[in-house]
Amino acid sequence: MKYNFYAGPAILPHEVIEASASAVLDFEGTGLSLLEISHRSKEFVSVMDEAISLVKSLLNINDDYAVIFLGGGASTQFSMVPINLLHAGRKAAYVDTGTWASKAIKDGKVYGDIEVIASSKDKNYSYIPKEFQINPDFQYLHLTSNNTIYGTQYKEFPVTDVPIVCDMSSDIFSRPIDINRFDLIYAGAQKNLGPAGTTLVIVKKSALTKSSGSIGAMLDYNNHINGASMYNTPPVFPVFVSMLTLRWLVKNGGIEAIQRKNDAKSSLLYAELDRNSLFYNSISREDRSDMNVSFHLYNTELDDVFLTRCKEAGCIGLAGHRSVGGFRTSIYNAMSIEGVQVLTEVMKDFEDSHG
Amino acid sequence: MKYNFYAGPAILPHEVIEASASAVLDFEGTGLSLLEISHRSKEFVSVMDEAISLVKSLLNINDDYAVIFLGGGASTQFSMVPINLLHAGRKAAYVDTGTWASKAIKDGKVYGDIEVIASSKDKNYSYIPKEFQINPDFQYLHLTSNNTIYGTQYKEFPVTDVPIVCDMSSDIFSRPIDINRFDLIYAGAQKNLGPAGTTLVIVKKSALTKSSGSIGAMLDYNNHINGASMYNTPPVFPVFVSMLTLRWLVKNGGIEAIQRKNDAKSSLLYAELDRNSLFYNSISREDRSDMNVSFHLYNTELDDVFLTRCKEAGCIGLAGHRSVGGFRTSIYNAMSIEGVQVLTEVMKDFEDSHG
Repeated sequence: MKYNFYAGPAILPHEVIEASASAVLDFEGTGLSLLEISHRSKEFVSVMDEAISLVKSLLNINDDYAVIFLGGGASTQFSMVPINLLHAGRKAAYVDTGTWASKAIKDGKVYGDIEVIASSKDKNYSYIPKEFQINPDFQYLHLTSNNTIYGTQYKEFPVTDVPIVCDMSSDIFSRPIDINRFDLIYAGAQKNLGPAGTTLVIVKKSALTKSSGSIGAMLDYNNHINGASMYNTPPVFPVFVSMLTLRWLVKNGGIEAIQRKNDAKSSLLYAELDRNSLFYNSISREDRSDMNVSFHLYNTELDDVFLTRCKEAGCIGLAGHRSVGGFRTSIYNAMSIEGVQVLTEVMKDFEDSHG
Repeated sequence: MKYNFYAGPAILPHEVIEASASAVLDFEGTGLSLLEISHRSKEFVSVMDEAISLVKSLLNINDDYAVIFLGGGASTQFSMVPINLLHAGRKAAYVDTGTWASKAIKDGKVYGDIEVIASSKDKNYSYIPKEFQINPDFQYLHLTSNNTIYGTQYKEFPVTDVPIVCDMSSDIFSRPIDINRFDLIYAGAQKNLGPAGTTLVIVKKSALTKSSGSIGAMLDYNNHINGASMYNTPPVFPVFVSMLTLRWLVKNGGIEAIQRKNDAKSSLLYAELDRNSLFYNSISREDRSDMNVSFHLYNTELDDVFLTRCKEAGCIGLAGHRSVGGFRTSIYNAMSIEGVQVLTEVMKDFEDSHG
């Protein structure tokens, strides 16, 4: 048995993987592979419709918002957000909570007037900045809800009248969202939603007031909305696997049930980290992520030995990102509580043998 | 037996489909699905490297050029090409040979000074314009090598000192290319290369002279080149299937062998169209595409009857695009000569019963 703690592309439910492999061989009894069927076929149009409908129902998204699946990764949104939302003469506020937020800021500056109103760079992004003013004149406030590399997460979003734009790539579908707080949410699929190759965008239709003539067709959200995510050929297979993953989520009780499971997993792991004398977690306690748990050995000479122990127990993908070192445990929706139990047992045994 | 004549996403070799399904279940004996493995794992890095290397060797691409796999569809290139290549104060020439060329032109106008120097719109795109002058001052000449909807194809590219930028989405890997004629070639994967979700770009490195500060990171070819197609998380599965398809092409003799096969298929089909008294093809004879063969029944009242006959014989995906009507046969690399033989037999039988 393997326990996959990769940060992304990441673990998917086993039944989703089996159904995906089966559709590659024969899609819905058509006698054709899902890979070679027209995206305009009624069978695939129904997949896209169901994927969009599942996103709306799981996250309680009302009709003020459009839901679209785009080709490619979330990083393209770092450009598309200011291109579509930020008007000349207006400013947008960004909070810098790490690598991905910084990349959003860099692209924001290419396309508009951007102000970084808060940052946790001073402590290597080990906390979420909270004490800052938000000028009501900002057109939007850009946040990164969960910081995969560091293991921080907004537990509450700032209270402000400025509409929030949020990169939720690594924690969407892990907990409820009050959609009315947001003008736009985006997320690359490859954590809680599906495999790499598609990006989900949820956008308030009334926020899209720019003239389309100034934006290339594929960079204009309106074209994708009007085309029901079929303005161009969509990434058929990644969308299909995402749809299956959303079905799995519904079958397993939806967002509230998965949040309870995610709480249980992260609580178990943080409790062991706080108890175990060999390890520590350097993230501000109230900002600890429920999706990515970063930790270190006090004695870094034991790093490789610990990784080997983990691997022997079937736990893989635990090396920390090079910018923070140590270890990182990604415990997305599809990770079982058993996986985390196995890992904490390894940590306990490691304390017994090296403590 | 099904014969898949869809225009794209389109037929893939059966062995590629089987190996893809198998990798979804267990990738390279890792015990993990290809869908849930890190794109930075040595197993996937090796897939990306092999895919790039196969493109280079199959098309004889020298080191003046970079080969990259991007996420999403080819339509994004309609913007990325002028954004990256067209300098202020310079003009680019575009030839309008149909729907996709027109879309490239529309986006070109958003980002630069574009001149449409030739068009076949006057005859519903049934030919490739040839009699036109190309001012040597143009920064590039944009062409669409094969026009999927209409069934036209450049057999020779215009002779000019202006560097050519070419959308080869529907005929790349079907015939040899003299790379030195081009500054940039792009192609969505979902015809001859793989499934939907990735786009191949081949670009002359010396053509990328714009300052990167003016381009959003994901829209800047240089970032993808410097990141070896891993600047962001690539569309892992579509790239893997593309790599398998390129391996299949090598195993089957490479570009010259596939060109002979493609010639044989299109010759067989056009010969039957020219012989059969019920059907006609309205494309200028010297511009007939070897990839997409469009045709009509003189008696359009028989259209549905003919499509039913085709379906009974296992031939699917034959309805023409709504802008031209009639029928369209896409005979990409993976289509067997047998598939075309079955179709021409149906046409002969149809003449016997309805002639």
